Amino acid sequence: MTDSLCAPLYIKMHGADNVAIVANDGGLPGLTRFPCGLELTERVPQGHKVALADIPAGGAITRYNVTIGYALDDIPSGSWINEFKLQMPAPPRLDRLPMATRQAPKMHPLDGYTFQGFRNPDGSVGTRNILAITTTVQCVSGVVEHAVKRIKSELLPRYPNVDDVVGLEHTYGCGVAIDAPDAAIPIRTLRNISRNPNLVGGTMIVSLGCEKLQPDRLLPATANGSDRGYDLVTLQDDAYVGFDSMIVSIMTTAERHLSQLDQRRRETCPASDLVVGVQCGGSDAFSGVTANPAIGYASDLLVRAGATVMFAETTEVRDGIDQLTARAASEEVALDLIRQMEWYDRYLARGEADRSANTTPGNKKGGLSNIVEKAMGSIVKSGSAPISGVVPPGERAVTKGLLYAATPASDFICGTLQLAAGINLHVFSTGRGTPYGLAEVPVIKVATRNDLARRWHDLMDLNAGRIATGETTIEEMGWELFRLMLDVASGRKTWAERWQLHNSLTLFNPGPVT
Amino acid sequence: MTDSLCAPLYIKMHGADNVAIVANDGGLPGLTRFPCGLELTERVPQGHKVALADIPAGGAITRYNVTIGYALDDIPSGSWINEFKLQMPAPPRLDRLPMATRQAPKMHPLDGYTFQGFRNPDGSVGTRNILAITTTVQCVSGVVEHAVKRIKSELLPRYPNVDDVVGLEHTYGCGVAIDAPDAAIPIRTLRNISRNPNLVGGTMIVSLGCEKLQPDRLLPATANGSDRGYDLVTLQDDAYVGFDSMIVSIMTTAERHLSQLDQRRRETCPASDLVVGVQCGGSDAFSGVTANPAIGYASDLLVRAGATVMFAETTEVRDGIDQLTARAASEEVALDLIRQMEWYDRYLARGEADRSANTTPGNKKGGLSNIVEKAMGSIVKSGSAPISGVVPPGERAVTKGLLYAATPASDFICGTLQLAAGINLHVFSTGRGTPYGLAEVPVIKVATRNDLARRWHDLMDLNAGRIATGETTIEEMGWELFRLMLDVASGRKTWAERWQLHNSLTLFNPGPVT
Repeated sequence: MTDSLCAPLYIKMHGADNVAIVANDGGLPGLTRFPCGLELTERVPQGHKVALADIPAGGAITRYNVTIGYALDDIPSGSWINEFKLQMPAPPRLDRLPMATRQAPKMHPLDGYTFQGFRNPDGSVGTRNILAITTTVQCVSGVVEHAVKRIKSELLPRYPNVDDVVGLEHTYGCGVAIDAPDAAIPIRTLRNISRNPNLVGGTMIVSLGCEKLQPDRLLPATANGSDRGYDLVTLQDDAYVGFDSMIVSIMTTAERHLSQLDQRRRETCPASDLVVGVQCGGSDAFSGVTANPAIGYASDLLVRAGATVMFAETTEVRDGIDQLTARAASEEVALDLIRQMEWYDRYLARGEADRSANTTPGNKKGGLSNIVEKAMGSIVKSGSAPISGVVPPGERAVTKGLLYAATPASDFICGTLQLAAGINLHVFSTGRGTPYGLAEVPVIKVATRNDLARRWHDLMDLNAGRIATGETTIEEMGWELFRLMLDVASGRKTWAERWQLHNSLTLFNPGPVT
Repeated sequence: MTDSLCAPLYIKMHGADNVAIVANDGGLPGLTRFPCGLELTERVPQGHKVALADIPAGGAITRYNVTIGYALDDIPSGSWINEFKLQMPAPPRLDRLPMATRQAPKMHPLDGYTFQGFRNPDGSVGTRNILAITTTVQCVSGVVEHAVKRIKSELLPRYPNVDDVVGLEHTYGCGVAIDAPDAAIPIRTLRNISRNPNLVGGTMIVSLGCEKLQPDRLLPATANGSDRGYDLVTLQDDAYVGFDSMIVSIMTTAERHLSQLDQRRRETCPASDLVVGVQCGGSDAFSGVTANPAIGYASDLLVRAGATVMFAETTEVRDGIDQLTARAASEEVALDLIRQMEWYDRYLARGEADRSANTTPGNKKGGLSNIVEKAMGSIVKSGSAPISGVVPPGERAVTKGLLYAATPASDFICGTLQLAAGINLHVFSTGRGTPYGLAEVPVIKVATRNDLARRWHDLMDLNAGRIATGETTIEEMGWELFRLMLDVASGRKTWAERWQLHNSLTLFNPGPVT
């Protein structure tokens, strides 16, 4: 088995495409001749596009059987096509879209797959047993960090069945227009994160006291009203005299929760209890060729097993909205998709931006010329199942099957909103490489290229680059990922967990600060 | 000396006021009779307003000689006036304001005051000698945190003249509309923070590689172009194989900086080298009576000593804009003030909010009925000097004297923007209490009330509550604060530093995320 290719190879995604991408590590020099007879007119970097035919100025450049742009000049066959050679098409209009028109593919139920999870009273299942300390406002962060450090070193070792202690710190809670219409998003995000399946063993809040986001607003009493359902430490309480009294109070409350959490044991749960969020970041042209199709395959397996899968990232699906509305399970779901796209179009326009603000220097260096091409490679993470629901930003998913979580594409905000949506496992593909991680939920990182998997051997959990070299297939890799998900859900640690790498929670707050 | 008052006492701010606030701890019961003959018709909590005369429905309620609202019903003398009893006035119009009309008060220069600081090559002076690790994007946070922890435990002890190592982590850098007009604000904020006087010993950046905010965009090459002026570790560099190689690279670079920083020594600097940011948070009705007037007095002392003082918090000065434009040193400065108010009015309106979104449940509990009353108490932090300049959000102050830094009032965002503006010392007053701190610059916290100072004895650095009880005067407290500033600037640790309490950097990003 070899790590890289010897023979020149390009990868064409669809029969109708007039471009393909160069697969070889390091790219290929000018005059390279492919087995089909195509000859490169110039050097083409790895992951970048080569014209398979002469394309006249104004002609459509087609990849994934989708027009990703129009040639700015005549492009001879064998030329390198990058972001400077094409003009981006307008985004698809949001009226007259196909609504739930696609016949759902035949998907046989997949039975008998299980994992070892922590069953929660609300029916959800945790893949980790974590004590979370919810905070109402950033003011308390320093104190909570101080307390968490001491809890981890002084208390946690005495409770071996508890995986971790996490302070749910954020920059919201005060100094914000908390009654503005858009404030609903960050507030419900925080509320639902504190109820994430990995954190629901008992809710504990640290509040300052005078903040706008009062504990009862963050977590309103349940319908029967008798029980507020959380333990509260309010730093401004008259009872506290001196810093240490605050720390002692947090630690005492935490220990009560730790001793309860420590009673919990993993039990056998069907794969249908998985709620998996999928995301990509630091993408390159291989993302849509190797890792994301494998994730899409695994996503179909999850749907067949009765689980929940969420794909997301609005600016990265906007250009493929026609595919999504067609795949919607019902006209209602298609309308929900359109509503989310319309909302985001308006949100971006308000800030004098549009979906083209997505794509980074690294995306382009990796071969992705624009957001249309990036979107096509991103959407394949969703596999082929019908889209059975839409989760608005910050809300919790309540249905099974393949869902669209309407989140920005920012890795951190998307991850934070998926936590709120109730994921108990996260799958993240990357082509350029990112040490992404979450403290609340294990993240399986999938490399799109062998070279990245080789260099980041102790950061990447799976190497989908082997698809490009023909060492494995999308199907095989999809199954490998599916089995890895069951293992990780059962407690196997990911690389990010081993190194304790994680990003801060990053709230989506479209409303103003004050 | 007693901690609380025995005789009933109210505090009236101006001869023309028809309300005053109750000073006594715990408030006063109904039928309490003041020496002047006024009798309370009902219980009035501490810090809350009592009517000094009958006020008819629709009549102006006056505090600080400013109409803070109009009576909703007849209010008999001796009644408790809270947020439910008055209607907020409209904000002052931004046209036809007095422009630089106020005669500057006579302020004698204050010579001979010095502190021990670290003089920087650019002429600025640090009050701490800190190694900062600048980051371009949140993706690298987990890695940088891991490295910082190791640097602190393995390297820092060997460099006793270096105070701390701080990772400048943030949630910007990618997944944002980086070319939107408002993106200029977060970008220049990060740029200027990395040049803060306490961090300029040498700039070191950790970058991912593919992010939108590339290192050269964050810190463009200097005019002569020959030197990029920073050391760069890019995690996606081909050179790195394995997680440990990244950590080693960060640590090696950090050690080079540490050994340079360790050569630095404090030297005697005039007080004019101080750049002090003032802020209040968790405010109550005493903020504008005790702590903030003392800060205002100290601010005048700083200006007399030739230093720079910055007050800020746009929504907390908006209602007093007429006072500020009148105090502007020139018509140009007054126009700059108005431009910032106009910009913020529009920003809030875009999110369907206005300045009344400021004021928290805690403010109201503490006696502040609305943003007008809060603003009057906030503005007094600025003392009486002419306003000699305006610093737009994220920009660095370049002039001396009293400046207005146009920042949101959010404690964290205001603090972050003041860091960018170049403060080397921060003064923060609080009535309700907050454990606020910054990792980059020492924060002196001033309590507005004895009760808070007593309970938070190891979190508050100064107790201005003694002004309300007559144990000291505003002038005496102002001098005490001024001397404390010189001590802290010279290296004396604040409580937040001793406990290592600090908030995360929180960027002001009015632009959209993608």
